[in-house]
Amino acid sequence: MSIQPLRVGVIGAGTVGREVVRAFLERSPRLMPSDGAPLVLTAVAEKFTERAIANGIPEALLTDAPAHLVASTDVDVIVETMGGAEPAHTLVAAALQHGKSVVTANKHIVAHYGPELERLAREAGVPFRFEAAVGGGIPLLGPIAQDLAANRIARVRGIVNGTTNYMLTAMTREGRDYAEVLAEAQAKGYAEADPTADVEGLDALNKLVILARLAFGAWIDPAAVSNRPGTTTGAPGLPGITGVTAEDVAALAAEGRVLRLIATTRLAEDGAIEASVVPTAVPAESPFGRCDGVLNRVEVDGLPVGRVAFEGPGAGGPAAAAAVLSDLVSIARGLGSTWAGSPAAAERSAIEVRPVAGECVAAPSGACYPVGD
Amino acid sequence: MSIQPLRVGVIGAGTVGREVVRAFLERSPRLMPSDGAPLVLTAVAEKFTERAIANGIPEALLTDAPAHLVASTDVDVIVETMGGAEPAHTLVAAALQHGKSVVTANKHIVAHYGPELERLAREAGVPFRFEAAVGGGIPLLGPIAQDLAANRIARVRGIVNGTTNYMLTAMTREGRDYAEVLAEAQAKGYAEADPTADVEGLDALNKLVILARLAFGAWIDPAAVSNRPGTTTGAPGLPGITGVTAEDVAALAAEGRVLRLIATTRLAEDGAIEASVVPTAVPAESPFGRCDGVLNRVEVDGLPVGRVAFEGPGAGGPAAAAAVLSDLVSIARGLGSTWAGSPAAAERSAIEVRPVAGECVAAPSGACYPVGD
Repeated sequence: MSIQPLRVGVIGAGTVGREVVRAFLERSPRLMPSDGAPLVLTAVAEKFTERAIANGIPEALLTDAPAHLVASTDVDVIVETMGGAEPAHTLVAAALQHGKSVVTANKHIVAHYGPELERLAREAGVPFRFEAAVGGGIPLLGPIAQDLAANRIARVRGIVNGTTNYMLTAMTREGRDYAEVLAEAQAKGYAEADPTADVEGLDALNKLVILARLAFGAWIDPAAVSNRPGTTTGAPGLPGITGVTAEDVAALAAEGRVLRLIATTRLAEDGAIEASVVPTAVPAESPFGRCDGVLNRVEVDGLPVGRVAFEGPGAGGPAAAAAVLSDLVSIARGLGSTWAGSPAAAERSAIEVRPVAGECVAAPSGACYPVGD
Repeated sequence: MSIQPLRVGVIGAGTVGREVVRAFLERSPRLMPSDGAPLVLTAVAEKFTERAIANGIPEALLTDAPAHLVASTDVDVIVETMGGAEPAHTLVAAALQHGKSVVTANKHIVAHYGPELERLAREAGVPFRFEAAVGGGIPLLGPIAQDLAANRIARVRGIVNGTTNYMLTAMTREGRDYAEVLAEAQAKGYAEADPTADVEGLDALNKLVILARLAFGAWIDPAAVSNRPGTTTGAPGLPGITGVTAEDVAALAAEGRVLRLIATTRLAEDGAIEASVVPTAVPAESPFGRCDGVLNRVEVDGLPVGRVAFEGPGAGGPAAAAAVLSDLVSIARGLGSTWAGSPAAAERSAIEVRPVAGECVAAPSGACYPVGD
């Protein structure tokens, strides 16, 4: 009784991809689910082949032509861990069109091209999984789509970007200013040389779009998600945490509050989806206030379940690779897509998206930060 | 294009069962998954039919003969929400033998008869789901089995019994003694008239056995799980929280520690499984120390993911019913059993079970409570 193995091609052997490859090279027994097809790594596409070889990836597996991989008849499943917009988006779309299952850790393409990629996966009848795109190795999307399926979810909110949480934690604890903690985060490798995606909230915003897809069954447009707090003048504030000052942090601390970059999405009574990613003033002693450093925490409020929360390290190559590998195992076991059999998402054009409504607290910089609990 | 509906029979219309029935009567759209078979309630078996009618269950659905229901050719899925050992165990086993899918919220029968029930489900090729048995509506078992599948799990520990956590929280905050807080918990409905299952740790122990099945792929014997702390004399202490005194709580508080009934299971290096459910002295400022009242919190430590945590209300009819209904939706979507395609569990006899090893701290009562972090 032999089951045909699933042949896996990995595109992108960077931080996450090389950990996925390593698990295959170490012949992890978890990649051979007893009730499913065994998984076999057949190729790795990487532009920087010399670095890949230095990282221990056998030359025999390597190619620098990912477009060939997604079209190859020798590959059943594509793992996309190259990141970024293009060519990742085109490659993943092509893989699905060629009838290949896809696992990706790429929050950008899932958030921005989700409607297209979901449609292609459904048309081809192949699974499309992306658990690693949100919260690293923390189970989030699967539990929302499957284990909470019978609940009516009203709100999802969370700290989903470790870099900004590390920076806000350092500003709060040490009273230092934004530029100083950013430089430190860059020196420690927590922030990139170009920190825009993190500090302006774009990374968190992509993750919020994906969470909203699972919670509300709709792909909202990332461009429609607010990433600026209000101001005392009524003008929009600076994006993400870029406008947060040491004075703001100190003034809030005097009231027992700390700033956290909270991504929030809520289903309004009129059917619109509210979505914002803004620095939020939460009680220092609240679960979000105590969520320090690079930890992630996501809370899901639903009926009848109440509030459930998920916590863990939201970043790091090995943790994200574990989520990718778990998605591969789910495909081998025939468990389908991350949306777990839920209905096709609503048309993006059918959904009104607006900022999350609520009170805000004025700070010395002129920003008016939403008040959280 | 019509899909044959799945006909559901509910056994036991108590706290959880009547909420399941209510969702059907309210025609929740979530019970009609677009990619799966619609779910239709066809019968409710309940001994106390008059109470069931008073609770709004239509007489036309009611029967007082659950044994007929599990054998009926008019039922495809059995929901067992009667609780307790017998006849629940016999009815669930019979349902599986008749080729019916089963969803249960009954931690006792899953923990005590898990090996038999898993074998029957596998032999019949039908799904057997029991997410509601641990942590109420908090997604725990599915995420461990499926979303964390590629990790090697080293330890699972948690506060999984709301009654004892409510009591320990009250003893800590108010300095009151055990008998007084037990009486109050009973008056408020948090503890049963016979509180043995909660206060001796038996409820938590059943949940730990189920968590260990998903984390380690083995059904451990509930009788092999330690539920007594050590003592300064070396003799075993009293079971569960029954030996905890106000003096113990005060002495630990002076050291910044609080007692929590922590269920812990760990995979030892020699392949044995360590498992204990004992009052544990944790730092007051730790996540477990801050997990107050009837909240549940479960932490899973794995490689490479690190530590992920799940929190939420671990009890209550509506929350547990939501887990039951989500399991039904998973069955309608063809997603299989709670073990999510993982290998058949190891034979119970092949597993050595011993108490969790570690340091303990001596308390005035003579108990020596394990030290947690």
